[in-house]
Amino acid sequence: MEIFLAQKMGFCFGVRRTVDIALKMIQINQKKVITYGPIIHNEDLINYLKNNGIDYTLDIDKIDPNKVEKVIIRTHGVKKQIIENLKNKGVKIIDGTCPYVMRVHRIVEKLSKEKYPLLIIGNKDHPEIIGVIGYISDDIPYFVVKDLNETEELVKKGTFQKIKKLGIVTQTTEKIQKVKEIVNYLMDYIPEIRYFKTICYATDENQAAIRELAPKVDIVIVIGGKNSSNTVKLFEIAKNYCKRTYHIQNENDLKIEWFKKEDKVGITAGASTPDWIINKVIQKIREFDDIICNHEGREYEKVN
Amino acid sequence: MEIFLAQKMGFCFGVRRTVDIALKMIQINQKKVITYGPIIHNEDLINYLKNNGIDYTLDIDKIDPNKVEKVIIRTHGVKKQIIENLKNKGVKIIDGTCPYVMRVHRIVEKLSKEKYPLLIIGNKDHPEIIGVIGYISDDIPYFVVKDLNETEELVKKGTFQKIKKLGIVTQTTEKIQKVKEIVNYLMDYIPEIRYFKTICYATDENQAAIRELAPKVDIVIVIGGKNSSNTVKLFEIAKNYCKRTYHIQNENDLKIEWFKKEDKVGITAGASTPDWIINKVIQKIREFDDIICNHEGREYEKVN
Repeated sequence: MEIFLAQKMGFCFGVRRTVDIALKMIQINQKKVITYGPIIHNEDLINYLKNNGIDYTLDIDKIDPNKVEKVIIRTHGVKKQIIENLKNKGVKIIDGTCPYVMRVHRIVEKLSKEKYPLLIIGNKDHPEIIGVIGYISDDIPYFVVKDLNETEELVKKGTFQKIKKLGIVTQTTEKIQKVKEIVNYLMDYIPEIRYFKTICYATDENQAAIRELAPKVDIVIVIGGKNSSNTVKLFEIAKNYCKRTYHIQNENDLKIEWFKKEDKVGITAGASTPDWIINKVIQKIREFDDIICNHEGREYEKVN
Repeated sequence: MEIFLAQKMGFCFGVRRTVDIALKMIQINQKKVITYGPIIHNEDLINYLKNNGIDYTLDIDKIDPNKVEKVIIRTHGVKKQIIENLKNKGVKIIDGTCPYVMRVHRIVEKLSKEKYPLLIIGNKDHPEIIGVIGYISDDIPYFVVKDLNETEELVKKGTFQKIKKLGIVTQTTEKIQKVKEIVNYLMDYIPEIRYFKTICYATDENQAAIRELAPKVDIVIVIGGKNSSNTVKLFEIAKNYCKRTYHIQNENDLKIEWFKKEDKVGITAGASTPDWIINKVIQKIREFDDIICNHEGREYEKVN
């Protein structure tokens, strides 16, 4: 087997920044810190933080100001109202919101003021989108669509018939091709479309890199949280080019029977996947290789 | 032969309105009227107006207020400055500008005020575009592109590198597919795109109708001025589906050798083509049919 790594993968700027904030709290031995929600979509990292004293909560009522001094806002951001509620609680807020997500907050605030109905392309249940919606004024109609089909449904229902202008933003981890399809489609129906490119550059780069790599390999391993949007997108893209594509959370999900002797193995990882997990995955695939190919004289650790 | 007419073709709302204004001047025997530029792109109609006392000029200096009382602004519109100059000349202005073009003027004025650099998709030498450009403030950068290639050239030159937002309008007669390609392409490069659908509904309808008809016939005749943008677009669309597509200005351009006995003949006409010309074309094709098929006992006029 031969292993090929995607040119760009793993931690993005925003995730690294938030994780660094949390790790620094451990380093300086801050005890009274929690995070609002899991700070990134990666169980291994969340467990690591928990084991080092930084737990998370989604229930502000349960925060006891005597026990908690600081709350780190997760990288996906939160509704404006939650920031207010935390302030009222008297805790100090450390804003770990990805700056690219903050930009989306500012854009929907601005478009709200200018009375633009809004279309958000993304997953309505994802914390990032729930946060973004929290920045839209109450008097502004908004719609969340996950794909072209849902957009077509809205048009068929006559939703856009009386809409003269529409602001469009996307989840930062969206696939540009899908976004283009939707904008293209709406160009036939809406007199003014104000589209903001809110897909972050890291998403662009990681997606471009797997698009480049996947057609050249026999099997692709995509590493990242099962609920990580950007990881799922990487999986979808890779799957288009390479049927033997697998999404794993960490090295324990790998199965030796996926691999064949002559395989070229491509590896990519979502923006919330720490390097240490990527390295463990690579290590384990190397061990599989040794077993499958029965390399003589080569040393390897025993695989569980 | 069998003749099929496109479901929608010929005079659009804007052209009919402007032509009606001019014809009414003839009807009420107004003598001191000229038009600024040819009011529509159709030589036959322009000649008809001239023969009935309504000539055109593009040179304001040559307008003698003693001889000219009223100036009709052509359907494509003019620069704002020209309206000013005509007013200063002391003539009465009858604005024949198509309301859909007026809307583009208002949009670029508004976007200028909001400091949006502008991209205009269309033909830079067309009077409509020259007019639209005349409504952009002097301090606003603007670019006119006729297709994706020219847009790509601009990007390669780094033109958009520092541009954070871009307003996009199109010539009212543009092909939506081309516009979508360009918007799609720019979505990768510009953080905010504010696109206004300025293709007029008549263009949409005429284009959709020939797209529907062309694949079902053996030969397509597109009637309209050689310098009529929307006619050229109809020709291009038809040509995609039917290789034997011809662009004619009037019935005199028809050639009998284009037609075969069993042909299904499709006919469409640009938005500036008067009905009387369409009818003459149909009449002449029927005569060809009689000659080619040698219909016994059927009466027809002799073809020149």
